[in-house]
Amino acid sequence: MTKKIRAGIVGGGGYTGGEMIRLLLNHPDAEIVFIHSRSNAGNPLHAVHADLLGDTDMKFSGKLQQDIDVLFLCLGHGESGKFLEQNEIAPSIRVIDLSQDFRLGEQSGERTFVYGLPEWQRDKIKQAKNIANPGCFATTIQLGLLPLAGAGLLKEVHTTGITGSTGAGQKLQATTQHSWRNNNVNAYKTLSHQHLKEVGRTLRALQPDFSAPVNFIPWRGDFTRGIFVTSTLSCALSLEEANALYREYYAPHPFTHVSDRMIDVKQVVNTNKVVVFLEKVDDKLVIHTAEDNLVKGASGQAIQNMNLMMGLDETAGLKLKGVVF
Amino acid sequence: MTKKIRAGIVGGGGYTGGEMIRLLLNHPDAEIVFIHSRSNAGNPLHAVHADLLGDTDMKFSGKLQQDIDVLFLCLGHGESGKFLEQNEIAPSIRVIDLSQDFRLGEQSGERTFVYGLPEWQRDKIKQAKNIANPGCFATTIQLGLLPLAGAGLLKEVHTTGITGSTGAGQKLQATTQHSWRNNNVNAYKTLSHQHLKEVGRTLRALQPDFSAPVNFIPWRGDFTRGIFVTSTLSCALSLEEANALYREYYAPHPFTHVSDRMIDVKQVVNTNKVVVFLEKVDDKLVIHTAEDNLVKGASGQAIQNMNLMMGLDETAGLKLKGVVF
Amino acid sequence: MTKKIRAGIVGGGGYTGGEMIRLLLNHPDAEIVFIHSRSNAGNPLHAVHADLLGDTDMKFSGKLQQDIDVLFLCLGHGESGKFLEQNEIAPSIRVIDLSQDFRLGEQSGERTFVYGLPEWQRDKIKQAKNIANPGCFATTIQLGLLPLAGAGLLKEVHTTGITGSTGAGQKLQATTQHSWRNNNVNAYKTLSHQHLKEVGRTLRALQPDFSAPVNFIPWRGDFTRGIFVTSTLSCALSLEEANALYREYYAPHPFTHVSDRMIDVKQVVNTNKVVVFLEKVDDKLVIHTAEDNLVKGASGQAIQNMNLMMGLDETAGLKLKGVVF
Amino acid sequence: MTKKIRAGIVGGGGYTGGEMIRLLLNHPDAEIVFIHSRSNAGNPLHAVHADLLGDTDMKFSGKLQQDIDVLFLCLGHGESGKFLEQNEIAPSIRVIDLSQDFRLGEQSGERTFVYGLPEWQRDKIKQAKNIANPGCFATTIQLGLLPLAGAGLLKEVHTTGITGSTGAGQKLQATTQHSWRNNNVNAYKTLSHQHLKEVGRTLRALQPDFSAPVNFIPWRGDFTRGIFVTSTLSCALSLEEANALYREYYAPHPFTHVSDRMIDVKQVVNTNKVVVFLEKVDDKLVIHTAEDNLVKGASGQAIQNMNLMMGLDETAGLKLKGVVF
Repeated sequence: MTKKIRAGIVGGGGYTGGEMIRLLLNHPDAEIVFIHSRSNAGNPLHAVHADLLGDTDMKFSGKLQQDIDVLFLCLGHGESGKFLEQNEIAPSIRVIDLSQDFRLGEQSGERTFVYGLPEWQRDKIKQAKNIANPGCFATTIQLGLLPLAGAGLLKEVHTTGITGSTGAGQKLQATTQHSWRNNNVNAYKTLSHQHLKEVGRTLRALQPDFSAPVNFIPWRGDFTRGIFVTSTLSCALSLEEANALYREYYAPHPFTHVSDRMIDVKQVVNTNKVVVFLEKVDDKLVIHTAEDNLVKGASGQAIQNMNLMMGLDETAGLKLKGVVF
Repeated sequence: MTKKIRAGIVGGGGYTGGEMIRLLLNHPDAEIVFIHSRSNAGNPLHAVHADLLGDTDMKFSGKLQQDIDVLFLCLGHGESGKFLEQNEIAPSIRVIDLSQDFRLGEQSGERTFVYGLPEWQRDKIKQAKNIANPGCFATTIQLGLLPLAGAGLLKEVHTTGITGSTGAGQKLQATTQHSWRNNNVNAYKTLSHQHLKEVGRTLRALQPDFSAPVNFIPWRGDFTRGIFVTSTLSCALSLEEANALYREYYAPHPFTHVSDRMIDVKQVVNTNKVVVFLEKVDDKLVIHTAEDNLVKGASGQAIQNMNLMMGLDETAGLKLKGVVF
Repeated sequence: MTKKIRAGIVGGGGYTGGEMIRLLLNHPDAEIVFIHSRSNAGNPLHAVHADLLGDTDMKFSGKLQQDIDVLFLCLGHGESGKFLEQNEIAPSIRVIDLSQDFRLGEQSGERTFVYGLPEWQRDKIKQAKNIANPGCFATTIQLGLLPLAGAGLLKEVHTTGITGSTGAGQKLQATTQHSWRNNNVNAYKTLSHQHLKEVGRTLRALQPDFSAPVNFIPWRGDFTRGIFVTSTLSCALSLEEANALYREYYAPHPFTHVSDRMIDVKQVVNTNKVVVFLEKVDDKLVIHTAEDNLVKGASGQAIQNMNLMMGLDETAGLKLKGVVF
Repeated sequence: MTKKIRAGIVGGGGYTGGEMIRLLLNHPDAEIVFIHSRSNAGNPLHAVHADLLGDTDMKFSGKLQQDIDVLFLCLGHGESGKFLEQNEIAPSIRVIDLSQDFRLGEQSGERTFVYGLPEWQRDKIKQAKNIANPGCFATTIQLGLLPLAGAGLLKEVHTTGITGSTGAGQKLQATTQHSWRNNNVNAYKTLSHQHLKEVGRTLRALQPDFSAPVNFIPWRGDFTRGIFVTSTLSCALSLEEANALYREYYAPHPFTHVSDRMIDVKQVVNTNKVVVFLEKVDDKLVIHTAEDNLVKGASGQAIQNMNLMMGLDETAGLKLKGVVF
């Protein structure tokens, strides 16, 4: 048996940190060396993540150790950059950052980051030393459009997406209050969501002449996990051609599946999968995609990137039991 | 005190029938004469609509009476036409039909129907003998676009809407099963929802040169009541101009309100209101609208139409306590 | 037409304050003179209670006026007592307090308070100058047990109750966070809920020899509104006798109804009703009750008390459209 | 590497059948040989269980194969007995039945069944040829009371339990309709739930003099998965003694954990765990327990039983990632 990958987690008290712990605890080829949390140092993990009771007696640590192979940063946006500035991390340690701090080519000292969307650039990820893990909406939107961009077929896109309350993080807010959110829907960041930057960068890398906008309307939904996205654009491909294009594009990718019937969010909840369903009406191609925002949209994709970087099976630790109902 | 309007209800066992009963029971100027239901004849209303326990001892009736002023048809699509063919209704009785059977100019014998969207044609409704009550999605979409169409400013529109489970009616179905629908979202009838016909008819009546599609993506949401719709189109108006246009258009209408901040579905649940919120980003105008699908989207609007037809205050019986949480 | 009752509201920004506004806006015999809120003074009501957009242009006020008949205190527990100490309220003004500050016989200066449970002591309420409005759980539990206590038949009771998230108030808390509460249940204040004091006081007033505990297990449910309570005790009455006892007890009360089939929470949501259903298995009598915690459990009952005190019809302003789905 | 256990599943189209498939697909020491379903024969699994898209291309089969070690019966109550009568199953094949057909000592031909509650009789299960898997409520209630019964301390118990909509199975019913169930609660089978038989049998086996009832009030909750149960009884033990008793009892059991703080349902959703929390108020001991009704309450416990019978690690295939939010 080979030696296990040694992993550290910074920011283990939040939603994505919790998912990282859950995934790594069951990963066959990796182990958690420490989970850093300033506010929770000394407390058992299950004092914060109640579901871990009985799974581990591990405690949060106030210290960073250097005897690790990979460091996962599960910090808020803006916090990862600061963390790397303020803490000495041995150069040999690979960093996988879940914030948006390094997704657009930003550096931290010597560290340069590869954008960790395996369905776009798996080979680069395999060679990477540091990964900027994609945003949750960004992952779902891109996986709906990558094959078209790869074929140079993108035109102006109209996209609506809906996200669960975990997408807003753990901080108490009026819009994540149960009395408000239950049975409710509204919109936010209309046509100006921050993930549009990384989406546009990827799409233009694949299709340099794509200059039209992705008109993205994000909605808040009254569920906890998951994202559903529908994108509409004019397209000359027939439905058969479009399906063939998408199936061929995703054939080598173990987590992205083209469905031949309508998809739904719960189909992928608690898994690292993205499902895609195509429809064609008149000249419009409509692409539906769904993911779990905390798994494929965050911690699961981070594990997938670790697997690729460290030469493991891409699916190691990610064969997850879904919770379709 | 003037004589009360005498109303009959056909199809009182379903969702819209139940709402019609609830609204008419508290209407100051109308009274229910009978509630027809073949399957429930003889049973007290509260045997079907449990919330009516203590409110009334009335029973469902198997007989149609002719001593009424208004007859509400709360039947499934296709059923209203059949009902009027198979039953003799005195010509003096006004019919308000909640199905889609008469929304596009269809007649039943001598009866012709006015499309009952007061924000479009209140004066015609006041003169009408029969009303085809608009669809729930159709109401929300139209109220987001009427002022633009009225000003001749409509261009190709991209619209996404999400509806609660009551929108699917009372029949048991896989997609209204709680274990499936709870915490879930998906799409259906992509770009082909039946309400697009009445929407297109209205918009072209206001703006005859409007020939582009309303690209409408309907979604199923995991709440019970309400509809949220976002429409996006290119528009040369500034945000101030657009708000002025909408506020002027809706000034004479008591149930449609332009908000100066983001709206949400629960803001209008259990009321006859529609709220509208406008945003402008680059050249795109974005219009958000929300309604309660069973009130303004069905039975409440039917009452509003009755009020107009019968010369009552448009808001009579429709000053409803919302349930914002 | 008689002069309308003039009402003031203190604490109008919270959940019960919002319901008080909604109910009084539609009350045929009362009008709101001012809504006091220190933090919201000067803002329109709909800036806080978004659903009121279009219903009123009224603003929150920072000043207390004395030209009113009734003052509703919608403040947190402990705050009502302080408020009455720190503010001069003309002695002629009747006070209806929704907190628990005066439910057990506490006084504020000259003001003594009558416990406002009409099904127990409607006549005292009619003569009262000040009302301590009952707690939400306390109302549901008492209405399940009053007829037994009245007949001297109470023995040790085992009671479980479940409450929606609005019961916890508007303050952001971990247990009202949507990501936690959605699809979740747990218990709190086991056998020690503060409402047990007022419950015990009432029951012993009716049945002085009742010395056994009401063993009350409160649970948090993942809905927003409503309370469901089941109480179990040994009882020699047959089911028929028990139903007769309850029906006779509640016959003069317009909001409490004995059902002959199983009840559920949504049957009474957004109404001032309580429904009761009895079962008998072996020697155990089981009593199920349901209410809306914000209406009959708070602001609706406060209106009911105002109606009684001011000589209005007990149901004035409380004929509400439910939202059973 | 040892040979994998070969498993067949009958009734693979339902909720527990689906969970059995999900669990066995990821089990390190077992493989699925066939999944029998008359109505779905020939269809891919993901046509029924949409979340399996991309996980397997296996199809439902109309034929029973005999080349298996274990057969899981995921059939409705009453159907398992019939199935074993009408189909020849090789005597060497072990049967694990998830229905209630064999929980009280019933036989099928030569087959006798051991009640598969490992926390009660793990050693008998290890020797068993056939297992009657416990009911979901029965598991949760028993795991709250076993240590007390083992110590001879049981007295009359008052128990309330709430179950999600998956507990009612896949059949469309009025009480599992989303429009009704969302944000709702009610009671059913008051003091007469069928699981009381197996609960009573177990408790009396451990404490033969226990003759008082378990007064069980089952409620329907508006979530999809999970059960929460609170039991109350008089008990002379101090809280410390009670906790010591429970911790000692469950020390050898990998899935049952005593918590030192309040528990909740989502803490165990999608896991095979049961969590227990004890409180003491005056002379009353209160025991809260939570489980996932489809995992520990059904298919997960069935796997646990298979593991024990077949000599595998009890936790094999059951180290599951929870979905706490």
